[in-house]
Amino acid sequence: MTEPGFVSAFAPGSIGNVAVGFDMLGLAIAGAGDRVSARRVSDPGVTIREVRGMDGQIHPSLSAAADENTASIAAKSLWFAAGHRGGIELIVHKGVPLKSGMGSSATSAVAAVVAVNALLDEPYPTEDLLVHALAGEQFASGGLHADNVAPSLIGGLVLCPNVLLPRMVSLKVPTGVSSVLVHPDLEVSTADSRRGLAKTYSQEQWLTQQGYIAGFIAACEHDDLDLFAKCLRDELIEPQRAASIPCFPDAKAAAMRSGAFGCSISGSGPSIFALCADDDAENIAAIMKQACQDAGYECQSWISPMNSPGACIETAK
Amino acid sequence: MTEPGFVSAFAPGSIGNVAVGFDMLGLAIAGAGDRVSARRVSDPGVTIREVRGMDGQIHPSLSAAADENTASIAAKSLWFAAGHRGGIELIVHKGVPLKSGMGSSATSAVAAVVAVNALLDEPYPTEDLLVHALAGEQFASGGLHADNVAPSLIGGLVLCPNVLLPRMVSLKVPTGVSSVLVHPDLEVSTADSRRGLAKTYSQEQWLTQQGYIAGFIAACEHDDLDLFAKCLRDELIEPQRAASIPCFPDAKAAAMRSGAFGCSISGSGPSIFALCADDDAENIAAIMKQACQDAGYECQSWISPMNSPGACIETAK
Repeated sequence: MTEPGFVSAFAPGSIGNVAVGFDMLGLAIAGAGDRVSARRVSDPGVTIREVRGMDGQIHPSLSAAADENTASIAAKSLWFAAGHRGGIELIVHKGVPLKSGMGSSATSAVAAVVAVNALLDEPYPTEDLLVHALAGEQFASGGLHADNVAPSLIGGLVLCPNVLLPRMVSLKVPTGVSSVLVHPDLEVSTADSRRGLAKTYSQEQWLTQQGYIAGFIAACEHDDLDLFAKCLRDELIEPQRAASIPCFPDAKAAAMRSGAFGCSISGSGPSIFALCADDDAENIAAIMKQACQDAGYECQSWISPMNSPGACIETAK
Repeated sequence: MTEPGFVSAFAPGSIGNVAVGFDMLGLAIAGAGDRVSARRVSDPGVTIREVRGMDGQIHPSLSAAADENTASIAAKSLWFAAGHRGGIELIVHKGVPLKSGMGSSATSAVAAVVAVNALLDEPYPTEDLLVHALAGEQFASGGLHADNVAPSLIGGLVLCPNVLLPRMVSLKVPTGVSSVLVHPDLEVSTADSRRGLAKTYSQEQWLTQQGYIAGFIAACEHDDLDLFAKCLRDELIEPQRAASIPCFPDAKAAAMRSGAFGCSISGSGPSIFALCADDDAENIAAIMKQACQDAGYECQSWISPMNSPGACIETAK
């Protein structure tokens, strides 16, 4: 798939917010991701030769203009920081659906910086790539949030609040827990969804949600599934976004009835995720899909271990 | 000190909020605490024979009326739950100064339930005593918050958000860290202090503080002192309370200049605490006291390991 002279990197999609950690918690998934191929060229600057879907066809909607694609914006940030002569040419293969809540823009940005990093004379440590991937993500989402970029880059469950950036904190994941991600066939704009959120919250609301995320992190570190299930909830943002995803209430109810530890909206949606025991994942994926289909939405689904890997180089120079 | 027929329990004071976790995080201290002695009597109900200071004298301000003291209210809650015949007589020795921000009311309540529990035919597990101690604390503070009761009961650093009660989560503490607690000689009413707090917070404020507590818990569990120091801060509540403690800004500045990981107000104050490397604790205690004295306030101080023990029985029947 990779053309001669190119290096290819794969980056996974991700679940943003993970219910309990709005804008600060993300989880890598397996099976869905973007691939970016990159090569050094003599002309300065960063260009995109083409953007293709996973079917190999030219992507019907994404721009290949270098100042409009998160992959090239992220690549440019890294390339300029490295200060090399010449430029970079990219080929982007989109595997993550757009406006899905699966971190599509972040995924391209991460794959791009990982590929370009491999072309540098002295590649940076993976952690140092975050700020460059964020430069791309920021263009797409209109805000600086690492909850998709961070897990796509380093894998697993990552805590990455804005106040700690560029620091990312890999959290332990509890034993035997999988994510189920269902993507119903409708589109939600992240930027529009953000604008619709309440601007202020009462002290009680704030402390309620803060209590859940604090308990959730302790639960992960202690491998305490009772506490994990008690804390895996979003009482502030989810209620504001649920109306934009008509099949969400039924899908969530079905997942919870079938023993999921929790179920919420991935990022700003429309994708819906559940965390559940490994053995329950296939059944829960099936009933969540059925609930979406019953509401009139076709959907795809992915099942992933919570410790799914982050981005990686697929082919050497 | 304990009279014949009585069981005595000691409970330590505590640091409430621990900067980063308003109403949900508490830390036990060493060296300051309350002692409650209890014995079974034939008359039903719970009474207090006397309330004494640690000097052995009758306490000048605390009520010995059973419906006005946190010790007896907590003891009554436990005693009635156990359903035994007869009653309980208590002697309370106060070692924690009142209205100090050191969890004085919680400390008496915890010592009382631990002493009474030892008198039951079938004592409860320690964790089950929380709700009864909270019944006493709630009377004193006007709200239901476990951030003093929980560490006084089980020791160490305890996460106890209201949404998870009666669950308490013991957090790992980082290696080689001590608390320094300085109590300047002024009084702050917890209830008054709570009423003065803002009722609403912006999304950005909420997420800032939530990011810090999330990072703090991960830092504790990972023994990561860099992250610990970065996260040990209160950007929402401390600024609203600082004005009530005139010596606070100078004491904090002195502690931070001397290498403390963080410094804030314990509970609603006036006590001020710092967390720092064990080897720095004596120096930091001295300069914080000096700052308070320079501002005209005499003070006491205590240095404690972060994993200080919780309440214990001191004498058997």
